[in-house]
Amino acid sequence: MKVAKFGGTSLANAEQIKKVCNIIRADQNRRLVVVSAPGKRYKEDDKVTDLLIRYAEVFLQKGEARAEKEAVFNRYREIVRELGLPAEVGQKIEAELEAVLANHAGLSPDRFVDAVKAAGEDNSAKVVAHYLRSLGEDAHYVNPREAGMLVTDEAGNAHVLPAAYERLKKLRDRQGILVFPGFFGYTEAGELVTFSRGGSDITGSILAAAVKAEVYENFTDVDSVYVVNPNLVENPVEIKEITYREMRELSYSGFSVFHEEALLPAYQAEIPVCIKNTNNPSAPGTMIVAERPASVNRVSGVACDTGFCSIYVSKYLMHKEIGFGRKLLQILEEEGISYEHTPSGIDNISVILRERDLTPAKEARIVERIQSELQVDDIAVQHDLALVMIVGEGMRQSVGTTAKATVALAAAQINLDMINQGSSEVSMMFGVKAEDADRAVIALYHAFFGKEEEREKAHSLSSLTV
Amino acid sequence: MKVAKFGGTSLANAEQIKKVCNIIRADQNRRLVVVSAPGKRYKEDDKVTDLLIRYAEVFLQKGEARAEKEAVFNRYREIVRELGLPAEVGQKIEAELEAVLANHAGLSPDRFVDAVKAAGEDNSAKVVAHYLRSLGEDAHYVNPREAGMLVTDEAGNAHVLPAAYERLKKLRDRQGILVFPGFFGYTEAGELVTFSRGGSDITGSILAAAVKAEVYENFTDVDSVYVVNPNLVENPVEIKEITYREMRELSYSGFSVFHEEALLPAYQAEIPVCIKNTNNPSAPGTMIVAERPASVNRVSGVACDTGFCSIYVSKYLMHKEIGFGRKLLQILEEEGISYEHTPSGIDNISVILRERDLTPAKEARIVERIQSELQVDDIAVQHDLALVMIVGEGMRQSVGTTAKATVALAAAQINLDMINQGSSEVSMMFGVKAEDADRAVIALYHAFFGKEEEREKAHSLSSLTV
Repeated sequence: MKVAKFGGTSLANAEQIKKVCNIIRADQNRRLVVVSAPGKRYKEDDKVTDLLIRYAEVFLQKGEARAEKEAVFNRYREIVRELGLPAEVGQKIEAELEAVLANHAGLSPDRFVDAVKAAGEDNSAKVVAHYLRSLGEDAHYVNPREAGMLVTDEAGNAHVLPAAYERLKKLRDRQGILVFPGFFGYTEAGELVTFSRGGSDITGSILAAAVKAEVYENFTDVDSVYVVNPNLVENPVEIKEITYREMRELSYSGFSVFHEEALLPAYQAEIPVCIKNTNNPSAPGTMIVAERPASVNRVSGVACDTGFCSIYVSKYLMHKEIGFGRKLLQILEEEGISYEHTPSGIDNISVILRERDLTPAKEARIVERIQSELQVDDIAVQHDLALVMIVGEGMRQSVGTTAKATVALAAAQINLDMINQGSSEVSMMFGVKAEDADRAVIALYHAFFGKEEEREKAHSLSSLTV
Repeated sequence: MKVAKFGGTSLANAEQIKKVCNIIRADQNRRLVVVSAPGKRYKEDDKVTDLLIRYAEVFLQKGEARAEKEAVFNRYREIVRELGLPAEVGQKIEAELEAVLANHAGLSPDRFVDAVKAAGEDNSAKVVAHYLRSLGEDAHYVNPREAGMLVTDEAGNAHVLPAAYERLKKLRDRQGILVFPGFFGYTEAGELVTFSRGGSDITGSILAAAVKAEVYENFTDVDSVYVVNPNLVENPVEIKEITYREMRELSYSGFSVFHEEALLPAYQAEIPVCIKNTNNPSAPGTMIVAERPASVNRVSGVACDTGFCSIYVSKYLMHKEIGFGRKLLQILEEEGISYEHTPSGIDNISVILRERDLTPAKEARIVERIQSELQVDDIAVQHDLALVMIVGEGMRQSVGTTAKATVALAAAQINLDMINQGSSEVSMMFGVKAEDADRAVIALYHAFFGKEEEREKAHSLSSLTV
């Protein structure tokens, strides 16, 4: 049994939905299908999820939202009409959404928004099941509540409950093609709650783990995952095979092809994940697996994420003070801030955090607390940092990966504000100024994946005045 | 006014003490002199401090320690005789030491050992003052209690109290050459307590800060501080000028020329420190200052220390868990362990600690606690790590320092288990296996300080298969 998940662009209009159904029908093992809400049809288009959020928000504010409702309904009307489905399919979708609104008085604003948002995926699933049946398939919409997608009660940020797996496992025994809406589940009290944005990937991963799928196919709009952001490099090298760990590190650093939290269930159940293209299903795609021969590619990707900042603290003989680091981190924790890394010298330590977590008020308070509670000699906050990463299982066995990377960065005249490499060595991280980030990524790409002459150039220190 | 401190080898015998006195007399500003206990006269010799410790320990155990006492007395008898001082100088030394022993019943064992140990420095000061007077100088032994060297009540590990500075400042107003014993002070209750081992450097630094000395001269047995351990490299480059921060980082990593804690008072009072050679006082030595022109030498030294280990912990989505790092460090703190560094990846973190802090029992308990309290996926302890550092104020301004270093290490076929460089950039740290440490230091020395052709070789990546 395969679990196949289709993303928003694969459901954006009737033409895309037809491709999806062709893919499902082409392999009789694709029996558990997870769908997103319709995405963008063209660059400036709106995703249905965004239309639904606007709809819910305006409704909450003004008690009605006609124009916003019409915008949603129009998308589904168009899809139903172009798929040649009976008009009552569309009418039923509209009636159900009206029912959510009618029921709004009983829901908190958070829950109401979750219920409206979830309609995007829910209706996609119904439409796809209808269309498959119209093609003569034995296809069924699956209600996540009835099937047992149990989640925590965190509006807009639910997490699966362990009990869900036992219940969802029973989907194996059902007949036909099962079409499951992504993105949401139900609390034990029966309330609808959504995952974080992009959470249909999570639904697919949970289902794949629950039914012990032979593979979790994740259909999107690219032929594969690339070793670098394709907006920065023309025709970048494709990744054929990558480990969960590598994918996880790349996801962290801006590889948005797969939801960050979605790998966990598949990883724990050791279900291989295949990233494929709805628009080119014959391309082999990228396999995400538990292990790969490291010798093939020592480095699997170059990634980058911006929006970081660092708090630099120095204090003479700091390292002799038991508990200094812990106290520093405790101040951040008390201010509700999650930190990313803490590179350190002998008498200094930098804490790297996400810029979005550090409001000016929090920054001022934290600086004040560190000064007064830790009696530091010096404190400085540096903004606009980027973290550039090279990721690869094989780096550990390879003397010289660091040299290759740092030479390439030096040749591109990029100053390193921070280097961080722990003993896992599945990744190596360089802190650079945000303005240097793209150049850094391109330089590293050429060093590790470029054509021979580019690599030669990147490896030469002769041009450097060090 | 200059403060001049002389180390153990400078006081090892009469010949050395004569050199010390010549140095003092050569500059009339050398008015405040700090002396260590007599050190080794030859490689297999004992330091007087070690003889005193053995004396105290055997006495505590057996109630007497004749042979051990004789060993101490013999050293002073020889010195007094060879300096041509009257026999009663030696007799007075012996009588005072006997008095300490006679008084032992009133002291805890820790305090008793401190009192006996301190006799080494105290008698050096008396001998030097006597000898200077025999040469016609107006020289005076200074009693640290009377002068106000106030310290905390931590046996064998005292720290200066802030009130000491105001009192010691008055030494400025005294006449003649003042000879001050290093290594110990007195609590506010009047009890003798010693600094940590090698603490005469600390005494000198405190005095230099208190009297606002124009310079703190620290006389030892080398012409200067070298950029690398001279046991590893023949005729290494000398350091002419270095900043407090650089010296501090080098001291941390095995540069034993100057006591780690000794820089603090001088640093805070901005007193320049000069490391000089008793056996070659005309050599300019190494100046330790607040700032130096970074452009002259971007890198000031290569250092290394062994005896580290790392605890590697990984947990899926660790970085989303607010407080994870803090909890990990808290476990170490509760086990009384100070950590050195915490390099991290996305879902993993390594804690680097001193091997000596991690007994097998503590290791087992910490591993068990981390597993059960933090629910980690994976934990591994790696022993026999070395930290190799390059230190230099100018590294920050220089694109490519990292490249130069990592290329040299790769060319020497050294695998990097860890890299750590925070935003201070006064140092860069590489974790390597202990067995690779010397080769790593030598490779880095050649890369930054070697002759042209060695540097060329170290900069070429062409020999690498990366």
